[in-house]
Amino acid sequence: MHRFSICLAPPSLRAYDTGVEPAGRKKPTMPLLVMKFGGTSVGSPDLIRRAAGRVAAEVARGHDVIVIVSAMSGETDRLSGMVSETSALFDAREYDAVVSAGENVTAGLMALTLQEMDVPARSWQGWQVPLNTTSAHSAARIEDIPTGNITAKFAEGMKVAVVAGFQGVSPEGRITTLGRGGSDTTAVAFAAAFGAARCDIYTDVDGVYTTDPRISSGARRLNRIAFEEMLELASLGARVLQTRSVELAMRYKVKLRVLSSFADGDGDEATGTLVCDEEERMESNVVSGVAHSRDEAQMTLVSVADRPGIAAAIFGPLSGAGVNVDMIVQNIAEEGRTDMTFSLPTDQVPRAEKALRQAKTDGNINFHDLIADVNVAKVSVVGIGMRSHTGVAARMFEALHAEGINIKVITTSEIKISVLIDRKYMELAVQALHDAFGLEKAG
Amino acid sequence: MHRFSICLAPPSLRAYDTGVEPAGRKKPTMPLLVMKFGGTSVGSPDLIRRAAGRVAAEVARGHDVIVIVSAMSGETDRLSGMVSETSALFDAREYDAVVSAGENVTAGLMALTLQEMDVPARSWQGWQVPLNTTSAHSAARIEDIPTGNITAKFAEGMKVAVVAGFQGVSPEGRITTLGRGGSDTTAVAFAAAFGAARCDIYTDVDGVYTTDPRISSGARRLNRIAFEEMLELASLGARVLQTRSVELAMRYKVKLRVLSSFADGDGDEATGTLVCDEEERMESNVVSGVAHSRDEAQMTLVSVADRPGIAAAIFGPLSGAGVNVDMIVQNIAEEGRTDMTFSLPTDQVPRAEKALRQAKTDGNINFHDLIADVNVAKVSVVGIGMRSHTGVAARMFEALHAEGINIKVITTSEIKISVLIDRKYMELAVQALHDAFGLEKAG
Repeated sequence: MHRFSICLAPPSLRAYDTGVEPAGRKKPTMPLLVMKFGGTSVGSPDLIRRAAGRVAAEVARGHDVIVIVSAMSGETDRLSGMVSETSALFDAREYDAVVSAGENVTAGLMALTLQEMDVPARSWQGWQVPLNTTSAHSAARIEDIPTGNITAKFAEGMKVAVVAGFQGVSPEGRITTLGRGGSDTTAVAFAAAFGAARCDIYTDVDGVYTTDPRISSGARRLNRIAFEEMLELASLGARVLQTRSVELAMRYKVKLRVLSSFADGDGDEATGTLVCDEEERMESNVVSGVAHSRDEAQMTLVSVADRPGIAAAIFGPLSGAGVNVDMIVQNIAEEGRTDMTFSLPTDQVPRAEKALRQAKTDGNINFHDLIADVNVAKVSVVGIGMRSHTGVAARMFEALHAEGINIKVITTSEIKISVLIDRKYMELAVQALHDAFGLEKAG
Repeated sequence: MHRFSICLAPPSLRAYDTGVEPAGRKKPTMPLLVMKFGGTSVGSPDLIRRAAGRVAAEVARGHDVIVIVSAMSGETDRLSGMVSETSALFDAREYDAVVSAGENVTAGLMALTLQEMDVPARSWQGWQVPLNTTSAHSAARIEDIPTGNITAKFAEGMKVAVVAGFQGVSPEGRITTLGRGGSDTTAVAFAAAFGAARCDIYTDVDGVYTTDPRISSGARRLNRIAFEEMLELASLGARVLQTRSVELAMRYKVKLRVLSSFADGDGDEATGTLVCDEEERMESNVVSGVAHSRDEAQMTLVSVADRPGIAAAIFGPLSGAGVNVDMIVQNIAEEGRTDMTFSLPTDQVPRAEKALRQAKTDGNINFHDLIADVNVAKVSVVGIGMRSHTGVAARMFEALHAEGINIKVITTSEIKISVLIDRKYMELAVQALHDAFGLEKAG
C-alpha cells in the first residue's frame, strides 16, 4: 500500500512527496515547515552547524522554515542554578528574565550559522514575534502568536526565522517562560499559527518506541502513533515530548514528527515517528506500546470506617497537600469498614502521610493503620485499537500471571490499561507484555 | 576649606551631605542616583551580593536608584567567542542578540539579590525601558531614553530599577549594543535622562590617578578631575572610563564618580574620583596627570618631494586604509624635499606601509625611503590649568632633557602636551614628569 496516498497533504505537497513535478507547470509554492532542535542537538557550535545543515536542506527543497531552538544542553540548568543560589524563594519574573538568556544565545548562533551557509536567516526572541502569553511566570500559557512580523520578512526573502523557544512576553511586557520542555510547545504553537505542513522535533532519540529499548531488546520504533496514544505515553513517563505540546498538536491537527538529530536522512526520507490523527495511522496493532514508571508508591489506609463521603474526606486533604493521586482501589474488609489503596509518586509519600494523619487527628477520617510501599512500579499497555477490540485486559493479566507476577492495583482508560506491581518484576512484566502483544513485529 | 560648600547640590542634597536635617520639617525627597557596576564587580553571585549591599545602603539613605550592570566578567568574551567561532564576518545584528544575553542574566540576578535584602527591585532589559538607539549594530548611539515606564514603577514603590547595560533597541525593534565599555555610556545616559544627583561608576580601581601606580610609586588618586582632563586621559589609554561616557557626562553636566567596588565606605563617604565641571575642581595643580601609551609606532617618509597638497596625498590613502594617524611632524630636509614623520598604533603599521607603497606605485607620492619604528611610546601631561599657565612645555622638556631622554615628536592641545620617545625610556619619563610637576602632593 502506498503510504502517502491517504496523507492529508495539499496537492502542492503531494507533488513534492513523489519527487515528480507536474509537467509544464510552475513549480508549486512549498509549504512552511517548523523544525525544533532540543538542547543536545544544539549543544555546541559544531552541533548547531549539523542542525543548520538539516534546515538548509529543507530550504534547498523550497521550504520556508521556522526553526525553534532550545538552550545549549546544560545552559538552562546553569542559569537556574545561579538563580537558586541567589534566592531560594525567587521572583519567577526575574527567574524568567535570567533563564530565557540561554535560548537567545542559541537563536543568534543558529541564524549566524545559516547565514554562513548562504541561507537568509534571522533570529527572533519571544517578545519580538511577539509570542504573547499569560502572566503565569515560569509556567505561562501561550495566548496568541501574531504572524505578521515573520510573514513580512518571509515576503522580503528571508528563508528561515530562528525563534528562541521556551519564552514569550506577558501582557505587562515582561519575559515569561513556558516551563521545562516548553520549546516543544513553542514549536507546535508556531506550526499551528503558521499552518505549517509539518512540525519536526529533533532530539537525541530517533522516535517513539513500542517500549523502552533498555528493557526489551525487541523494542521497535513506531513509524506512526496517534495523538491520544502519544498523550498516554508522554504522561506515563516516555519523556520524548512535553505533554502540552502533544495536546496542542492534537487540538490544531499539527502533523508532529519526532526524529533524531544524529541519524542520517532528512526531509521526508528521515526516519522517526509521526504523531498524527488516528485515521492516518497505518499500523493495525491493537496495542501500540508498553510504558513503565519506576517512581511509584502505594499507600493503604487499613480499615477505614466506610460511610458516604469517605472518599472525599480522604482525597480532599491529599489534593490540598499537592499530592498527585493516580490509581485508587477500595476493598471491602469487614462490615462497615474498608481498605483504601492508592498510588502516588514516591517523593510525595511524606506529604501524603502528614496530610492523612492530620485528617485523622482532626476527626475527619478514621483508620487503623497507614501502610506505604515504595517498592512498586506501574506498567501500562497503550493502544487506540483497544477502543474496538475486546480481550486486551484478559490477555495482559494472563501474560503477567504466566510469569507469576501479582497485580496490586488496576486502572483503565479507553485506550490504556495500567497495573501496579512489585518493582522487582517491572522489567519482566514489560518484556512479557511486549511479547504477548507481538510488538516486535509491525502490525 | 569646606569641600561641599561650592557643590552644585540642590538644597535637599545639602541637608543630606551634612547629615543635618532641618528641624521641624518633613524629610526632603532624596534625589535619584545611578550606580553602575562593571564586570569584575558582578563576576559571581557573591560579588553581586556585595554590590547589592552598596545599593541597599543608598536606598536606606532614602534614594531611589537606577543600577546599571555589565555582564559577569569573562561572559561577553565567551559569547563573542562563540559568535566568531560560528562566523568570521558575522551579521552584527545577530552578534548583538547573542552578546546582550550576558547583561540580561546579571540584571535578573541583581534584582533577585536586592529582593532577598527586602529592597523592592526589578530588572529591565534595553527594549523594556526602552533605550532607543540608532541601527548601527555593535556601535549604536543612544537616541532617547523615555523615562515614563521606570518612573511609573518608582511611583508604585519600586526602589531600584536594575537595567542591563550595553544594550538598546533599534527603530526596527532589534537588539543593539553600544560597543565595548558601553555600560559606562548607558549609566551616564540614564543619569542625564533622569536628572540623577550623581552617577557612580563602580569598577576594580578606586579612581583616577595622577599616573599609573605600577610605574610611579608617587602616583596619587585624584579627588576631582575636570571632564576635559578625563577625556584626554581616557583617550590616552587610562582605561577607567569609556571616552563616550565622559563626553556625554560633560554635555549633560552629569556628576560622574569613579570608585572601587572592593574598597570600604559608601554614599558620599566613599573615596574615589569625581569627574566634574572645571569650576568644581578644588585642586590647583597646573598639571593633573601623566598618561602613557605603549602601543605606539612611528613612521617616517624620507625625502618626500615637497609640493602643495603633499600632506593630503600622504594622509588621504592612510585614512582610506583605516589608519589612525595621531602625531605629525614635518622636517625640511633639503631644497624641495621634506621628511614626514607620524605616529600610529603599532598594529596598523602593515596597513600603513601597504597604503603608502601603493600610493608611490600609483605615482601620487614620491619618497626615497619608508622607515617604521615600533619601539616608541607616547607620554603626555594633562591639566586644565595649562590654559592659564605658561611654561608647562618648557618645564616638561627640561625634565626629560635632565634624564637624557630624546624627544622625537611633539603635539599639543589646549590642555595637553604629548611627546613620542624611545619606548625603553617610557617609565623613566613618566616618573620624571610626575616629580617635575609635584603630582605626589595634592595641589
